[in-house]
Amino acid sequence: MTGRMGRVISDITISADGYSAGLDQTEERPFGDDGGDGSGDKLHAWMFDTPDENRAEVEQMTAARAYIMGRNMFGPVRGEWDRQWNGWWGDDPPFHAPVFVLTHHAREPQPMDGGTTYYFVTDGIASALAQARAAAGDGDVAIQGGSTTINQYLAAGLIDELRLHIAPLTLGAGTRLFEGVPPLKLEQVKSRAAKLATHVTYRVLS
Amino acid sequence: MTGRMGRVISDITISADGYSAGLDQTEERPFGDDGGDGSGDKLHAWMFDTPDENRAEVEQMTAARAYIMGRNMFGPVRGEWDRQWNGWWGDDPPFHAPVFVLTHHAREPQPMDGGTTYYFVTDGIASALAQARAAAGDGDVAIQGGSTTINQYLAAGLIDELRLHIAPLTLGAGTRLFEGVPPLKLEQVKSRAAKLATHVTYRVLS
Repeated sequence: MTGRMGRVISDITISADGYSAGLDQTEERPFGDDGGDGSGDKLHAWMFDTPDENRAEVEQMTAARAYIMGRNMFGPVRGEWDRQWNGWWGDDPPFHAPVFVLTHHAREPQPMDGGTTYYFVTDGIASALAQARAAAGDGDVAIQGGSTTINQYLAAGLIDELRLHIAPLTLGAGTRLFEGVPPLKLEQVKSRAAKLATHVTYRVLS
Repeated sequence: MTGRMGRVISDITISADGYSAGLDQTEERPFGDDGGDGSGDKLHAWMFDTPDENRAEVEQMTAARAYIMGRNMFGPVRGEWDRQWNGWWGDDPPFHAPVFVLTHHAREPQPMDGGTTYYFVTDGIASALAQARAAAGDGDVAIQGGSTTINQYLAAGLIDELRLHIAPLTLGAGTRLFEGVPPLKLEQVKSRAAKLATHVTYRVLS
């Protein structure tokens, strides 16, 4: 292989106590119980309520050339693919690139509008990363989430850059970033305060 | 009571995964195993290695008029006060104010140089806060730590403002801020990136 190889980055919104999702994910509440009144997704309010202020961070989240996500981030279907589920993001998902979904259950690739295709990977995180790297060329690969998936890649030493969006609330329970991950040395690359989140970018040193 | 009542604030340095101390506190390592090589306190490097850049945050930490801390923050002595221990901070501690130490073991007040006096409180967090408020007058009371103590005050709804200093490393284990605290609504008051920490101030709404 010649030329520049892209980085492996991960962008994730967490509560001040480190959770990326509360308990009890449902089709109506992809991020589970966020401690709110059920009227909205409090963790991601920074994206949806204040998009202008956070345009740079949002654009950065969809700049990768291939994506990897866990089965539970892809949707609420568990076990066999016994119903048609094509992600939370509608017919024209914001990825515009291949998305590799980690699952124990094989499924044919699912092309969507706008250049997104969902591929279902049953042989583990290293295989998904190899496929994503091949698809991304010299572009970046984004480990999209959820935390369970990101934690596996962090523990394996496979993430170069971590971009946290820390929302002003705590959840107290749920899926926690860094859970079970051995200690990491980080370099703080940048940090910026918006109204509804503090954005922090870390390079993962080891 | 008339006049302005001070706020109850808490200032604490945590790792990116939310720990304020690693495992295995000793007299040589007040913050336990920080994942480093034992040559220094990696969590608090922002204070000691880059004091000029962080002068405002450090000054803010010693601006309260009374302090509360847990027994384990005060020192490594456990059980009865069977040896003379007057804190980690030398003869002239940086508090210059009364410091109320939560403990199960009674002890006479310990005056130090520069206006610091350590008082030992055996009847719980509410009593310590009442005593600290009385001592602080219209000044602020600081819940100094560690996280176990701060978590008790957070769970009781007794903290008005939380100032986090997030260091660029993860510890993976230890004493974690927010552990066991029910979900909190926060308002992000300000945030600033320094080289070795991101500083975030939250008002605790509920």
